[in-house]
Amino acid sequence: MIDTILEFLVQKNYKQLKEFLAEENPADIAEVISELDENDAILVFRLLSKDTGAEVFAYMDKDTHIGILENINEDEITYLMNNLFMDDTVDILSELPANYVTRVLQNVSEARRKLINHFLQYPEDTAGSIMTIEYMDLKKDMTVKEAIERVKKYAIKKETVNNCYIIDDKRMLLGEVTLKDLILATDDTIINDIMNEDVIVGNTLTSTDEISLMFTKYDILSMPIVDTESRLVGIITVDDVMELIEEETSEEMGRMTGASPLENPYMKTGVFKLARSRIIWLFVLMIGATISQLIIGKYEDFLTAYVVLAGFLPMLMDTSGNTGAQTATIIVRGLGINEIKLSDMPKVLFKEMRVALIIGVTLALANFFKLWLLQSIDPVIAGAVSLTLICTITIAITAGSSLPFLARKLKLDPAVAVSPMITTIVDAFAILLYFTIAKALLGI
Amino acid sequence: MIDTILEFLVQKNYKQLKEFLAEENPADIAEVISELDENDAILVFRLLSKDTGAEVFAYMDKDTHIGILENINEDEITYLMNNLFMDDTVDILSELPANYVTRVLQNVSEARRKLINHFLQYPEDTAGSIMTIEYMDLKKDMTVKEAIERVKKYAIKKETVNNCYIIDDKRMLLGEVTLKDLILATDDTIINDIMNEDVIVGNTLTSTDEISLMFTKYDILSMPIVDTESRLVGIITVDDVMELIEEETSEEMGRMTGASPLENPYMKTGVFKLARSRIIWLFVLMIGATISQLIIGKYEDFLTAYVVLAGFLPMLMDTSGNTGAQTATIIVRGLGINEIKLSDMPKVLFKEMRVALIIGVTLALANFFKLWLLQSIDPVIAGAVSLTLICTITIAITAGSSLPFLARKLKLDPAVAVSPMITTIVDAFAILLYFTIAKALLGI
Repeated sequence: MIDTILEFLVQKNYKQLKEFLAEENPADIAEVISELDENDAILVFRLLSKDTGAEVFAYMDKDTHIGILENINEDEITYLMNNLFMDDTVDILSELPANYVTRVLQNVSEARRKLINHFLQYPEDTAGSIMTIEYMDLKKDMTVKEAIERVKKYAIKKETVNNCYIIDDKRMLLGEVTLKDLILATDDTIINDIMNEDVIVGNTLTSTDEISLMFTKYDILSMPIVDTESRLVGIITVDDVMELIEEETSEEMGRMTGASPLENPYMKTGVFKLARSRIIWLFVLMIGATISQLIIGKYEDFLTAYVVLAGFLPMLMDTSGNTGAQTATIIVRGLGINEIKLSDMPKVLFKEMRVALIIGVTLALANFFKLWLLQSIDPVIAGAVSLTLICTITIAITAGSSLPFLARKLKLDPAVAVSPMITTIVDAFAILLYFTIAKALLGI
Repeated sequence: MIDTILEFLVQKNYKQLKEFLAEENPADIAEVISELDENDAILVFRLLSKDTGAEVFAYMDKDTHIGILENINEDEITYLMNNLFMDDTVDILSELPANYVTRVLQNVSEARRKLINHFLQYPEDTAGSIMTIEYMDLKKDMTVKEAIERVKKYAIKKETVNNCYIIDDKRMLLGEVTLKDLILATDDTIINDIMNEDVIVGNTLTSTDEISLMFTKYDILSMPIVDTESRLVGIITVDDVMELIEEETSEEMGRMTGASPLENPYMKTGVFKLARSRIIWLFVLMIGATISQLIIGKYEDFLTAYVVLAGFLPMLMDTSGNTGAQTATIIVRGLGINEIKLSDMPKVLFKEMRVALIIGVTLALANFFKLWLLQSIDPVIAGAVSLTLICTITIAITAGSSLPFLARKLKLDPAVAVSPMITTIVDAFAILLYFTIAKALLGI
């Protein structure tokens, strides 16, 4: 697609380019524009019909927004802002540098500016920060015919009309009807008689994590959001939730390895920002490994006498680190999607203890015979290594399965740096146990 | 909710229980039933209205399905199967043991049995295996009025009517109209004039990964699926995609730590299955660590003379392992959601090299001064450790950023055991480099 567009641009064949663009999907156009240089980007953007322009704009990333905003005039900004849905507006503005936000807000009506500012104040990661106000509202005493007329009149300005919300004069949410309900009912049916009153509803301050869990659990397409006084203030639609889940999953995966979230997509993030997002936990855990160093230091004489023992340190550390990180990842994920509940902790720990025993004993036996029979290692040393393996695997799995629960109970994010942290902690234990067991078995 | 239900059950107050259930959400009822004992579960299930029963059944997990199927009669099975959507039917049957599948299939009509068997044959992880056939189809020469009449007539049996698909006599997909389009158009408009012909469409053999990427990218609610001859054979709806994404993300996170996917939810999986899903990679990598052991073995004499060097092994191994796993996780995720493309490899590698240099030099300097000034370690040894750190971090980041690309190019899953594997590989390099550098600096 980008090749076709570049060709039209080189030929200055704008008429055909315009026709070509009219047939393409807004998400694809946004992607291509972000790959063009600034002049071409503006040119292509201006060739879009004005409505498509706003839609394409909503799909772009931050850098492209800045590029476009720098090059369009005040009228174009006004038009753009009037045609963006509120959730996209808030999403775009909350990422832009302050001077761009000011310029944008100067070009919208005062009423809309107030509204935008209000929406911008909802804390990040709450339903309020991702909802939109363009929902379809109906009254309970309308007939279906009246309702459909209202839908026809306002649908074009709404994010969705598949779900319509029934509110009273104080904007309290009373129920919901789907467009399908309206189609299936006879014209003179009263909305009150067909509306569903058991609506799955969120609050402006509900966390986005919880919102996405509710969408997945109840298979909903749009969720009404109410304020603290139960007044309907917005809706969240499933497409935004999917985007949210993708973003949150990426952030969680990164966090689990000790990397903090990036503001921009990876390919658009500079080297220093990338390094900064990763270095903090690496540094902390590097310092944390001093404990392992001190433990080894205490056993220096012993190690000099039995230097062969040093050879098994990597295997012991790797295996226990891997085991711990593995368990922790599974538990953190289970807690995250509510597949494992906080109250399951005793059951999970008991389960994991037994898993630890099976894995520990199996690996230890395999390791013992490998060392003894294949590598002709002194069976006492092979025994010490294998016995340590059982213990460290048990510790690794116990730490990996209990720390996420503890973090949750302390209202900390169980994902933060969980896998390198557990590796580092478990390694220190592994080394300590290893030398203790080896000393005992060797009778020193 | 479960307490209320248990109370009604104890009081044998079935009438009120029935009324109570009628008000609850099917997803919640399914959850409660899975927590009841078998007799109560059946009792509650039978109190549901027949339509709700099928919906609740679709939300249940495998064990609960078996429990219910064991206790209901043939007529009930027939009714249930006739009221389940095809995607749920296939989903349920593909998880049940063969004898249950046989019993279920004996109680459906021959036509439906053939259809189910056909659907069961689509390979797992393809669009065909998750699509459903209950889509709303229209003809292009219908008027909007005729179309709406058709929707009214069949909507109740359709998974969704928010999107309707226009097909010709050979069932070739021509376009799509939304229910909103129909409402907004005048009665005598011809469907052909308002249908959208640029439909985002999938093929029965498109991978489910790709399907979910398309849903997220294009913000779609339902996607038509065509066979190899471009005939419309089914649709996939966004709620199924969300479930799919949740499941696939869990599997991917597990796989990255070397754990294979579980068939059932964690809490319903036995200890042996849990152990088996995790032990294979732990075993392979335990054996892999033999390389590190052999390297240390080669430097035994040197290590005996400078046993202090052993103390820094854990820090070097942990830091490089953590760094490598971190980078790999970020790259694997980026590739998975198409934020990073295969063709970005050179750019990514160049980027990561520079990130490695920044992180490596910063951590090495911090480490050098910590060892020298705070721990009074001989500066030559502190230097050897720190120099090794720069090298191993560079290797870790290079491995972490290139191996996922290579796996992709070889059409392997880049996620499989990526983080423990990189830890183990990088550790071997770290040890080798450490002794080489230390020997050189100490002038031996």
